[in-house]
Amino acid sequence: MTTLRPVILTGDRTTGQLHLGHYAGSLRNRLDLQETHDQFLLLADAQALTDNAHNIAKVRENVFQVALDYLAVGIDPAKSTICLQSALPALAQLSMLYLNFVTVSRLERNPTIKDEIQARGFGRDIPAGFLCYPAAQAADITAFRATLVPVGEDQAPLIEQTNEIVRRINAAAGADLLPEARALIPPVGRLPGIDGRQKMSKSSGNAIPLSASADEISHAVRQMFTDPNHLRVEDPGCVEGNVVFRYLDAFDPDKKELEALKDHYRRGGLGDQKVKRRLEDILQALLEPIRERRLELAEAPDYVMDVIRKGTGRAREITDRTFDDVARGLGLFVL
Amino acid sequence: MTTLRPVILTGDRTTGQLHLGHYAGSLRNRLDLQETHDQFLLLADAQALTDNAHNIAKVRENVFQVALDYLAVGIDPAKSTICLQSALPALAQLSMLYLNFVTVSRLERNPTIKDEIQARGFGRDIPAGFLCYPAAQAADITAFRATLVPVGEDQAPLIEQTNEIVRRINAAAGADLLPEARALIPPVGRLPGIDGRQKMSKSSGNAIPLSASADEISHAVRQMFTDPNHLRVEDPGCVEGNVVFRYLDAFDPDKKELEALKDHYRRGGLGDQKVKRRLEDILQALLEPIRERRLELAEAPDYVMDVIRKGTGRAREITDRTFDDVARGLGLFVL
Repeated sequence: MTTLRPVILTGDRTTGQLHLGHYAGSLRNRLDLQETHDQFLLLADAQALTDNAHNIAKVRENVFQVALDYLAVGIDPAKSTICLQSALPALAQLSMLYLNFVTVSRLERNPTIKDEIQARGFGRDIPAGFLCYPAAQAADITAFRATLVPVGEDQAPLIEQTNEIVRRINAAAGADLLPEARALIPPVGRLPGIDGRQKMSKSSGNAIPLSASADEISHAVRQMFTDPNHLRVEDPGCVEGNVVFRYLDAFDPDKKELEALKDHYRRGGLGDQKVKRRLEDILQALLEPIRERRLELAEAPDYVMDVIRKGTGRAREITDRTFDDVARGLGLFVL
Repeated sequence: MTTLRPVILTGDRTTGQLHLGHYAGSLRNRLDLQETHDQFLLLADAQALTDNAHNIAKVRENVFQVALDYLAVGIDPAKSTICLQSALPALAQLSMLYLNFVTVSRLERNPTIKDEIQARGFGRDIPAGFLCYPAAQAADITAFRATLVPVGEDQAPLIEQTNEIVRRINAAAGADLLPEARALIPPVGRLPGIDGRQKMSKSSGNAIPLSASADEISHAVRQMFTDPNHLRVEDPGCVEGNVVFRYLDAFDPDKKELEALKDHYRRGGLGDQKVKRRLEDILQALLEPIRERRLELAEAPDYVMDVIRKGTGRAREITDRTFDDVARGLGLFVL
C-alpha cells in the first residue's frame, strides 16, 4: 500500500447489514479498487446518528455487522483501511470548521438533502446534524485527501458541495491545502428490491442480505417479481423492468447466454421458473462463500475488532495530520 | 485546585483585546471565583470563527492578546485553567453529536441567535457554524462538566438551550451523564462605551482597552459623555445615564463618598471636570499595574505560551474523558 496510489474514500452508514444491492452497487467495485487505489472504508456511525439519534443501539450493533460484511466479501485489511468514523476526532474538527464556510441557505438548497428531508418526513423538525451532514461529508472526504468518491448518481451534489468548501478553504488559505474530489458513479445502476421497488432495504423486507441462508435465497428468488403479463410459458415476456432479469444483468457471468435467454423469453416459450432457477444457482454460488466466511469471522470477534482498531489507528494519523495542515494553512493559532 | 470545587466555564471570543467593559462585567468576578471554584477560561477562537471566517488573522492574533489580558489582571494559572478551544477535539466531537439532538427550527428560535443574526446583518447568508453555535456552546459547557456559567442577561437563553440538550442526552443514555448548568448573571450591568452607547467595543472606538496608556486613559475620560443639559457648574445635573457616574458606580471603591458626590451633582455646583478628575484618578490607579504587568508578560511570550499549553493539556484530559463517558453512556461503538 503506497500513498502514491490515488485515494478513494467510501463507506457505509452503520444502520443495517449489507445486502445484494450493496454488493452490486459498491462492494464488488471496492474489491477491484483496493488493488489499484489507497482505499478507505468508513464505518459511518456518526453520519448514521444524524437521523438515528433515537436508535443508537442499531447504529452501534451494525458497526460490527458492516465490518463483517466487508471482510466476508473479500475486503483485505492489508489493502483497504477499515475505520470507525466516530473515533476520528479530526473529522468532527474539520466539520465544525467547514460549517463556517457554508451558509444555512446553501445547505437547505442541496438537492440530496432536500430529497432526503422529504423522504424522511422531517418537516420542520430536521435534526441540525442532518442539515449539516454535507459539511461533515466534506470533512470525511478531505480528511483523507480523497480525490475519488464512489457515490450513486443522486449523491453527486454532495461532491459538488464538498468541492465548494474545498475551494473556499483553499482561497482563505491562499494555497492548495486540499484537493478537489471527483464522484465515481458506478457503471451498474441501482439493484431493485425483490418486489421491484426502486430501493432494496432491510426495513422494506425486499432485500437479500449477504448473510442470507440457502433457504432464504431460494425463498427470495421464488418471491421475486417478473413480468405480471407473462402468465403462460408460451406467452412472450418482457425483460425490461423484470426484476429477475435485472438481477441476472447484475450477476450472470455469462453475458452471451444471458442474451440468448432474454431473446427466448421475449419470443415466448421460456417459463419464469426456469429463469429463476438460473438466477438462484448464480446467487447461491455467489453468496455461499460470503456466508461461510462471515460465519467464521463472527466466531472471531477479536480479529474483526483488531482490524477496525488498526485501520482506525492508521486513519487517525492521516486525518489528524490533515486537520493540523488545514489549521496551520488557514492561520489558526496552533500550539 | 481540587475537583470538588464547583466547576465554572467562562472565556472570551478572541476577536480583540479586552477592555474596561470586560473588566467590570467579568474579569473582576473571575479573580474572586478562582479562589473558590475550579475555573476554566476558554480562549474561544473556534467560536470567533463562526462569524469571522473571513478574518482568521484577527482571531489568531487575539488568542495571545486575550491570554495576556487574563494574566495581566491577575488570573492565576495555578488557580484557573486557560485553554485554547480549537485545540480541544472533544469539543468538536461533542458539538457534532449534540447537533443530532437539536432541530434546525429550535436553533432558529433561540432569541440570542435571532438578535445576533439581525445585529450582524447576515440575512439569509448565515454561516451554518453561526446557527449551530448554541450546540457548540453546550459542548463547551458540558465537556468541562461546568455547573456555573457567567453570562450576560442576554445570553441566558443559551444556557437554557444547553440544558435542553443535556436532558436529551441524559434521557437517551438513561442515566445522569451530564449535569445541567446555571447562568451566573453578574451583579453589575453592562458598562457603556465612553460615548454613552450601550456596548463598549474596540470597533466602535468607544472602549478603553486594558492596555491603554496613561494618556489614552486621560483622553478617554475627557471625551466621556456626561449630562448634555449640565452646561454651567451651578446647574443641577443628572446622574442617571451619565456615563461618568456609570463608570464611578463600577469602579469607585468609596461608595459613601460617591453618594455624596452624586447628591452634590444633582443639586448643582459640581462641575463635570471635577467628577472626571476623580474618575481618571481611579482608572489610572486601576489600569497602571495591569498595563505594566501586561508589558512585562508581552516580553515573555514563552511563559504565556507555556501557560496556554499546560492549561490546554489539562483541559484536553478532562474534555476527552467527558466525550468518552458520553460516547459509552449513549452506547456508541467504542474501540
